[in-house]
Amino acid sequence: MEFNAAVLHRTNDPLSVEVVRVGDLRPTDVLVRIRASGLCHTDLEVMQGQLAYPLPIVLGHEGAGIVERVGADVTLVKPGDHVVCSWNPSCGHCYYCDRGEPILCEPYSHHQPRGHLLDGTSRMTVGGQKLHHFSVVSSHAEYCVVPETGAIPVPKEIPFDRACLIGCGVMTGVGGAARVARIPAGSNVAVLGCGAVGLNAIQGARLQSAERIIAIDRDPARLALATEFGATDLIRADEPDVVARVKALTGGRGADCVLESAGHVDAYRLSSEITRPGGDLVWLGKVNVDRDVAFRWGSLMGEKRITRSSYGGARPRRDFPWLARLYLDGRLKLDELITMRLSLAEINLGFAAMIRGETVRAVVEFPE
Amino acid sequence: MEFNAAVLHRTNDPLSVEVVRVGDLRPTDVLVRIRASGLCHTDLEVMQGQLAYPLPIVLGHEGAGIVERVGADVTLVKPGDHVVCSWNPSCGHCYYCDRGEPILCEPYSHHQPRGHLLDGTSRMTVGGQKLHHFSVVSSHAEYCVVPETGAIPVPKEIPFDRACLIGCGVMTGVGGAARVARIPAGSNVAVLGCGAVGLNAIQGARLQSAERIIAIDRDPARLALATEFGATDLIRADEPDVVARVKALTGGRGADCVLESAGHVDAYRLSSEITRPGGDLVWLGKVNVDRDVAFRWGSLMGEKRITRSSYGGARPRRDFPWLARLYLDGRLKLDELITMRLSLAEINLGFAAMIRGETVRAVVEFPE
Amino acid sequence: MEFNAAVLHRTNDPLSVEVVRVGDLRPTDVLVRIRASGLCHTDLEVMQGQLAYPLPIVLGHEGAGIVERVGADVTLVKPGDHVVCSWNPSCGHCYYCDRGEPILCEPYSHHQPRGHLLDGTSRMTVGGQKLHHFSVVSSHAEYCVVPETGAIPVPKEIPFDRACLIGCGVMTGVGGAARVARIPAGSNVAVLGCGAVGLNAIQGARLQSAERIIAIDRDPARLALATEFGATDLIRADEPDVVARVKALTGGRGADCVLESAGHVDAYRLSSEITRPGGDLVWLGKVNVDRDVAFRWGSLMGEKRITRSSYGGARPRRDFPWLARLYLDGRLKLDELITMRLSLAEINLGFAAMIRGETVRAVVEFPE
Amino acid sequence: MEFNAAVLHRTNDPLSVEVVRVGDLRPTDVLVRIRASGLCHTDLEVMQGQLAYPLPIVLGHEGAGIVERVGADVTLVKPGDHVVCSWNPSCGHCYYCDRGEPILCEPYSHHQPRGHLLDGTSRMTVGGQKLHHFSVVSSHAEYCVVPETGAIPVPKEIPFDRACLIGCGVMTGVGGAARVARIPAGSNVAVLGCGAVGLNAIQGARLQSAERIIAIDRDPARLALATEFGATDLIRADEPDVVARVKALTGGRGADCVLESAGHVDAYRLSSEITRPGGDLVWLGKVNVDRDVAFRWGSLMGEKRITRSSYGGARPRRDFPWLARLYLDGRLKLDELITMRLSLAEINLGFAAMIRGETVRAVVEFPE
Ligand SMILES: [Zn+2]
Ligand SMILES: [Zn+2]
Ligand SMILES: [Zn+2]
Ligand SMILES: [Zn+2]
Ligand SMILES: [Zn+2]
Ligand SMILES: [Zn+2]
Ligand SMILES: [Zn+2]
Ligand SMILES: [Zn+2]
Repeated sequence: MEFNAAVLHRTNDPLSVEVVRVGDLRPTDVLVRIRASGLCHTDLEVMQGQLAYPLPIVLGHEGAGIVERVGADVTLVKPGDHVVCSWNPSCGHCYYCDRGEPILCEPYSHHQPRGHLLDGTSRMTVGGQKLHHFSVVSSHAEYCVVPETGAIPVPKEIPFDRACLIGCGVMTGVGGAARVARIPAGSNVAVLGCGAVGLNAIQGARLQSAERIIAIDRDPARLALATEFGATDLIRADEPDVVARVKALTGGRGADCVLESAGHVDAYRLSSEITRPGGDLVWLGKVNVDRDVAFRWGSLMGEKRITRSSYGGARPRRDFPWLARLYLDGRLKLDELITMRLSLAEINLGFAAMIRGETVRAVVEFPE
Repeated sequence: MEFNAAVLHRTNDPLSVEVVRVGDLRPTDVLVRIRASGLCHTDLEVMQGQLAYPLPIVLGHEGAGIVERVGADVTLVKPGDHVVCSWNPSCGHCYYCDRGEPILCEPYSHHQPRGHLLDGTSRMTVGGQKLHHFSVVSSHAEYCVVPETGAIPVPKEIPFDRACLIGCGVMTGVGGAARVARIPAGSNVAVLGCGAVGLNAIQGARLQSAERIIAIDRDPARLALATEFGATDLIRADEPDVVARVKALTGGRGADCVLESAGHVDAYRLSSEITRPGGDLVWLGKVNVDRDVAFRWGSLMGEKRITRSSYGGARPRRDFPWLARLYLDGRLKLDELITMRLSLAEINLGFAAMIRGETVRAVVEFPE
Repeated sequence: MEFNAAVLHRTNDPLSVEVVRVGDLRPTDVLVRIRASGLCHTDLEVMQGQLAYPLPIVLGHEGAGIVERVGADVTLVKPGDHVVCSWNPSCGHCYYCDRGEPILCEPYSHHQPRGHLLDGTSRMTVGGQKLHHFSVVSSHAEYCVVPETGAIPVPKEIPFDRACLIGCGVMTGVGGAARVARIPAGSNVAVLGCGAVGLNAIQGARLQSAERIIAIDRDPARLALATEFGATDLIRADEPDVVARVKALTGGRGADCVLESAGHVDAYRLSSEITRPGGDLVWLGKVNVDRDVAFRWGSLMGEKRITRSSYGGARPRRDFPWLARLYLDGRLKLDELITMRLSLAEINLGFAAMIRGETVRAVVEFPE
Repeated sequence: MEFNAAVLHRTNDPLSVEVVRVGDLRPTDVLVRIRASGLCHTDLEVMQGQLAYPLPIVLGHEGAGIVERVGADVTLVKPGDHVVCSWNPSCGHCYYCDRGEPILCEPYSHHQPRGHLLDGTSRMTVGGQKLHHFSVVSSHAEYCVVPETGAIPVPKEIPFDRACLIGCGVMTGVGGAARVARIPAGSNVAVLGCGAVGLNAIQGARLQSAERIIAIDRDPARLALATEFGATDLIRADEPDVVARVKALTGGRGADCVLESAGHVDAYRLSSEITRPGGDLVWLGKVNVDRDVAFRWGSLMGEKRITRSSYGGARPRRDFPWLARLYLDGRLKLDELITMRLSLAEINLGFAAMIRGETVRAVVEFPE
């Protein structure tokens, strides 16, 4: 079949909406008709060449839609299901899946950076040429082909534009607080960086019944938004005395748990300074893999612990429907994350706004 | 009373053995007649001025001896008990003690760097001048005054020279592996740096029934010793391909757990590179508090975890007698750690040998 | 000094309000002027002889008041502090305190059942005769003498009648859910028995962001109250099909976590039947120590786990002020727990109402 | 194809060695040529009707052999691999597999008790009639058909008769200690019941560097064997004062961890009495699912924890090769477990010896 997709042919070029082609579904494939697709900073990293992927490629890894057709052996979803795509499907039986660490799934880790599905091949072509999948999703398109473990059913009541956000930023932020960090009820938490991940880390900390939730960002507008998501205290990251401010709010000790979601070397450094002795640092943001990350040795002393998490400890089939139900129950904010809506044809406008720091999330919507 | 002690008057001066004086014991004080005291690298850091302490001071924090006299309210020990000193006694009721983190005890953290006991005062004078305690121990002396929670009874069968080692290097290394790290039986472990702490981390990993224990050090003699302590594989730290070597020994993935005990910025960096995705890094070594510690961001990705531990998760009253019994049962090596024996008068020779890298542990022995 | 206290002279007799006497404070004693004291079922067990304690005794272990005077060595509180009493003070340095399990403190376990403070003596007399302390509190009196680790400062804003509840039922229930059980956000929880502990377990599960909170009790009035505390589903314990009802609410599997707070052998048995495979049972209720507790073997199969907790994993100095702040922030319900208010002279009316099942909590109030 | 298998046609009849038939392999099937098959008590429970399974059935769930042929989609094993069968293969993607609890895999739990493979069908017939699989293994036969996740490659150096034991009793016992229980190095452990599981729990506790390992059994011969496996203290279960004996060996407190592997209601009751406050009970044994298990309430008080485990926390593809390597390294005892060797034709003699309590493990061997 053929459909429109936003194709990246060369880094630093705009995306080009073109007709692409997929062949027959393999036995565990699922064809999803995309209804909404969020623009995430990781897409931009590929467009700008900071994150190297084989080209051409269809970006987009925060997608929601309706299952259109399934392969012969698919049992986990059926046509008509509303699904959110997971950008980290797992095989179920490799070294890491066997150990209960599906985020590290070896077929995924091997094939995903090569622009392939878990079986090591692509399903898409453009102009007769092989076209690559991005993180086993490629949702900036009218359709996508994903393995059945990457198509997660959610309640039909949640609108697609809200649902798609669950697939990356919401899961990473909420999960960073609720699945990865140690936040016993009553903890003091600091969150560095109030983008989509950080705002969700804040509401994750709220779900954990943290007492004080300190939001830190350079942008006053982001801090204002942080309050809506549950922050109890706001600090401008460019104030001269951030460390002292955090200590003043936490009995002089520092936060029990610090969630870094700024993805900046200064934030890693700061995160260590503002954590109390014995406290927990969770690093959700990322920089280029070859960059050095550094901190003052004395700031880590005192039995601190750092955990790197890339997807908020996601178990998508447990967590995605839960997050959708939380939203439907009014206990999780999603509406406030969407600051821009676009058609697929307008997708480059969304990335331009992201570069200017104007968006929390821009979402591409597809007509019914 | 009066006794001989090795006093540091000025940094970079040798220690000076002089007669010092202690006054009456306070209610929870314990007077220990020291029988053996190990020379630890942390002592040297104070002598060389890297670690700032008020002077004059009596160094030594790996001490073993016999309880000579106790204060009026002491219940945990009695005269005649053989004890190993803990350099991290705790108050039992502060913010951190209440939370089950006695290593972070606030009276300890406040008073110890000031050269005081937990009540904020010194018990010692030299030439009429206030003399400071080192880490609430000061064992390079014929006697020391410590709080009762710092004097830990051990079986009388263990010789003092072996017993004293339990108080710092053995506890830190064995505990780093057995109390702090996650080493389920069958894990592959790497240990960076095979000094006293590293060799004990190796035997701690052996106690955890690690499968492969990879020792890494620059010094071939240290690596040879590592084998005796349980290392199954040896790597010269100055080989060009240490990362590749570790991966080749661990199915291409890296070690499940890496214990850093070299105390060097290069070792921190390397530790991250040789840990498998999802694996555990435990940092036992230390550098100056103002030094930067850095690593390549890409080396930490993949859900890794770093834990800083300063005393191997010590619960001295649980762990010191256990370590002594392990030695007496032939299941813990201590004899092999002692590479030099000295009288108090010869103590500067021990530090000189330490600077030349000739010792694992030099121990000052005191006559009966 | 002399003051009025409700004394139990013989089991099955009413309490008798009499003038009792305390001598001088010992160095770590704290004298608390009681302002409110809750009536807990454990008091009744002593009055009825199910729980054997030496007599005469002053009952009451849910007390709040103002520090009147402190012993010479007290550092943790000062006169004028508003405090809630802990019925499980700890020594800080025994076998269990050393291991981070202060609830099992050995001096406490030894002296408390003998009606003594932690030093093994009583401070009270009545008519010249030794008078026993109950659980190191004895708050059904105008004053009580407790060790400093048993007097926990809380914010002065919280009224005493609300504050006193924190000392037993609230801590046990909220802590059972938030400190002892494993309730990751999104869990389905069932609570058996909706008395003071059960209602607090419900609000503890709410603080953990449980998704479904199923309350089970025989009494429709208690179930109605459970809704206010956060229960999402209600089941009458005498319905014929409780197990099927719970399974119907939990995808056919049973609850992820079941908190037993009924203190009845039928409830223990039921708790195992309604837990899903791999799930967590936490037993907060209690029956007589010599009673047998039984369940069907097949109901425990499937990797279930049972944890007994007597005080909700209390760390009083961490948790009591936190619970008070939660109340002051409107996030913890306490007002709804108080169903009867009494003067000390009326205390027997409160126990009579408890026997008739009419109260959640009756609270004795003392004039300013 | 056709081969010989020991068929159970009716409960309480002997097994009958007959020619059975398997059809074509399905895509994820593996055909294993069995070389050794251990007789486990669970087989006997089916023969005696205590454990209800559809008949006719081929018993045997401790099998080792060589992969003969694989289905079209198999990737985890290949012909010629030496494998040990897992009696708890998992689907990788169901509710429980998704949560990291593959032992509870829902397709397994549904189909296994019906005598089917994970796809809900049987592969075997006898005399034209459907023949059932036992626990997805059926190793008392010359061949078996299992899903690829149930055939676990192990090193070729380990003899088959030793290897097969890993598949049930060794995994359950060693894993109960090393994967399920909390046994920090230096713990005091008691093991109730010194059959195949108990002896392996003892060597599991040894691998965890337990200090004292107390073996309890009625049979002096079993206790003698327990010493070989690492027990440090032996107690006859029929002595009048078992509780006092355990307390005398453990500082008066009880064992830190008790592993029940007797599968008897008296042992469950005793296990609770001999655990120290705050300690861990792990129940590995089993009784009929409708039996009541009871204990004295007072014996569980004091913050104890009970965990039921049916397969020692097995992650077969992580643990089976590890256990094989431990044996090959001389660190795991397997030879001593085999007390009887039989041909398939003699299999009923093995069960007769088991009923008389004469065996630890009888193993059926198959010629090359
Ligand atoms: Zn993303
Ligand atoms: Zn995988
Ligand atoms: Zn040291
Ligand atoms: Zn402290
Ligand atoms: Zn109570
Ligand atoms: Zn204690
Ligand atoms: Zn078995
Ligand atoms: Zn499954």
